[in-house]
Amino acid sequence: MQTIRNDEPERSTAMPVVALCGGIGGAKLALGLYHILESDALFLILNTGDDFEHLGLHISPDIDTVAYTLAGKNNPKTGWGRRDDTWNFMKALAELGGETWFSLGDGDLAIHVERTRRLKAGESLSQITDDISRAFGISAHLLPMTDDPLRTVIETEEGALPFQDYFVRKQSKPAVKKIAFEGADTALPSAAVMNALQLPDLRAVVICPSNPFLSIDPILAVAGIRRALTDCSAPVIAVSPIIGGQAVKGPTAKIMSEFSMLSTARAIADYYGELLDGFVFDNTDEAEASGSPLPYLVTQTLMESLEDRKQLAHDVLTFADTLNARPAKAGVAGPQ
Amino acid sequence: MQTIRNDEPERSTAMPVVALCGGIGGAKLALGLYHILESDALFLILNTGDDFEHLGLHISPDIDTVAYTLAGKNNPKTGWGRRDDTWNFMKALAELGGETWFSLGDGDLAIHVERTRRLKAGESLSQITDDISRAFGISAHLLPMTDDPLRTVIETEEGALPFQDYFVRKQSKPAVKKIAFEGADTALPSAAVMNALQLPDLRAVVICPSNPFLSIDPILAVAGIRRALTDCSAPVIAVSPIIGGQAVKGPTAKIMSEFSMLSTARAIADYYGELLDGFVFDNTDEAEASGSPLPYLVTQTLMESLEDRKQLAHDVLTFADTLNARPAKAGVAGPQ
Repeated sequence: MQTIRNDEPERSTAMPVVALCGGIGGAKLALGLYHILESDALFLILNTGDDFEHLGLHISPDIDTVAYTLAGKNNPKTGWGRRDDTWNFMKALAELGGETWFSLGDGDLAIHVERTRRLKAGESLSQITDDISRAFGISAHLLPMTDDPLRTVIETEEGALPFQDYFVRKQSKPAVKKIAFEGADTALPSAAVMNALQLPDLRAVVICPSNPFLSIDPILAVAGIRRALTDCSAPVIAVSPIIGGQAVKGPTAKIMSEFSMLSTARAIADYYGELLDGFVFDNTDEAEASGSPLPYLVTQTLMESLEDRKQLAHDVLTFADTLNARPAKAGVAGPQ
Repeated sequence: MQTIRNDEPERSTAMPVVALCGGIGGAKLALGLYHILESDALFLILNTGDDFEHLGLHISPDIDTVAYTLAGKNNPKTGWGRRDDTWNFMKALAELGGETWFSLGDGDLAIHVERTRRLKAGESLSQITDDISRAFGISAHLLPMTDDPLRTVIETEEGALPFQDYFVRKQSKPAVKKIAFEGADTALPSAAVMNALQLPDLRAVVICPSNPFLSIDPILAVAGIRRALTDCSAPVIAVSPIIGGQAVKGPTAKIMSEFSMLSTARAIADYYGELLDGFVFDNTDEAEASGSPLPYLVTQTLMESLEDRKQLAHDVLTFADTLNARPAKAGVAGPQ
């Protein structure tokens, strides 16, 4: 069921859109949005809870995945890393007895080395990310959620694990008991993030189909971001990361069952709760959508081709426009 | 003129030999010595005056050149870096607007990243270098001259330049006025270096045909090393880096003329002065050798093939053995 009629007028593609985004899954929709919007209209708030120090390098996996994806430099097979990269660094590191559980391609290393160097020189992650985007020819705004350290820690049956230990080294296998965000009590959103959420002509805030617990919650844990979302003038729309009870990629459904949630798209909508003004279900889940108390859209959310990404981006924004037109949201927008 | 007679008895190849060594030129003779000696009999004291921080990484060019050379991993075309390396890191770094004047191959990066990580964790350069050697299957002892910072600074007509700025970025073009060793007043030799120079059965100390000013002087600037050389029980032999008035590689002859020295092998012998018990001239310089006040050997010092390296190593040690047999050195050895 497509609730959008094609004869509705489209809002300008120059109007700004904010998207909250994790890594691989989120980057797909981010790319779709990037393609259908004017080049500088897209503001991506990126999860840095996955960031970590490895081999002395500061690695920001989600920022890099989004940057490579938008620049067309991403490895389409893995989703992470660079297209056509080589692996001589990892081979030589193995020879030296170094830690090889986290794969770093030769070309990929440049972003980590350069970022680490600049962070140590006192520059902010926001400034460095902005420069990387420009160097890559990306005109969208890539905004780390915070310039402060905020680290996702997974409390599992095997004890507390730093995010990458859980996600990469242990391949998300340990059962999750709780997820904590170290540093959330002191991390501040970057000025650019707050500016984006307070843009007066904001068309929509899209929560990409990233893992809610691992990719979106860290963003929402940064002081002020959740409030800025509920206060903002645009409708907040989440796209379900669950299709037919399963995640397209990653441990979303597994964690839901570990949290004693039903692994359904509806449960994701309920989890986001009051934050949302609308929710996007996949066609597969049309039946459960129909009982939703929230405005919803049912469309194809599985993104295999670039066309799929653009079509979903278009559908989400057109859906948002119908909510934008409702007087209710204006009523809750509050003082800016 | 070969002063060695073939019927002289050879000393055991199990007897320890120390060599002082810079980068590419020195590594050639080090490889020759490594091939003709028992596997753990070679102790190489390596220049770390060229070490520098670049892109946040601690780079030890001379240690790396020697390690790659002895492990058979060296790039035979350049002399530095790894054989068959790739350059995707540098390409990606250039794309990001990073500093690209110092070339780092993809596989080569592993040694820099791993060393930097371990130094920051508080391990010593000696320990790290030893582990790298073992990982590479090298049984010779690679000994950084010091674990303390000692940095070669080139005072030129363009001002004071850190070594790599002079050597790589400016390609040794600025005229040299003076060479300084920052940190020499506090740097201590590593225990392993002092142990090697005090080995009771030491057969010879060989000063490789490295640049005396840029590669050997930094070693001699470390407190105690010069004294340990004059005090040691074995003859100290230098191999001329100058052949027919020219350096095989690098700015040795150019610096000599900037220092108002004749660019001759004899001038090198005079420069080392009292440190030496013997000097090795190339066949080309037989005429000037004959006037030498110091015991000398004339042989082929140009090393093109592995056989050349082994032959020169053999010639130098056999020459040293003739000096070892002289009572004079025993007289100056002093208390150990």
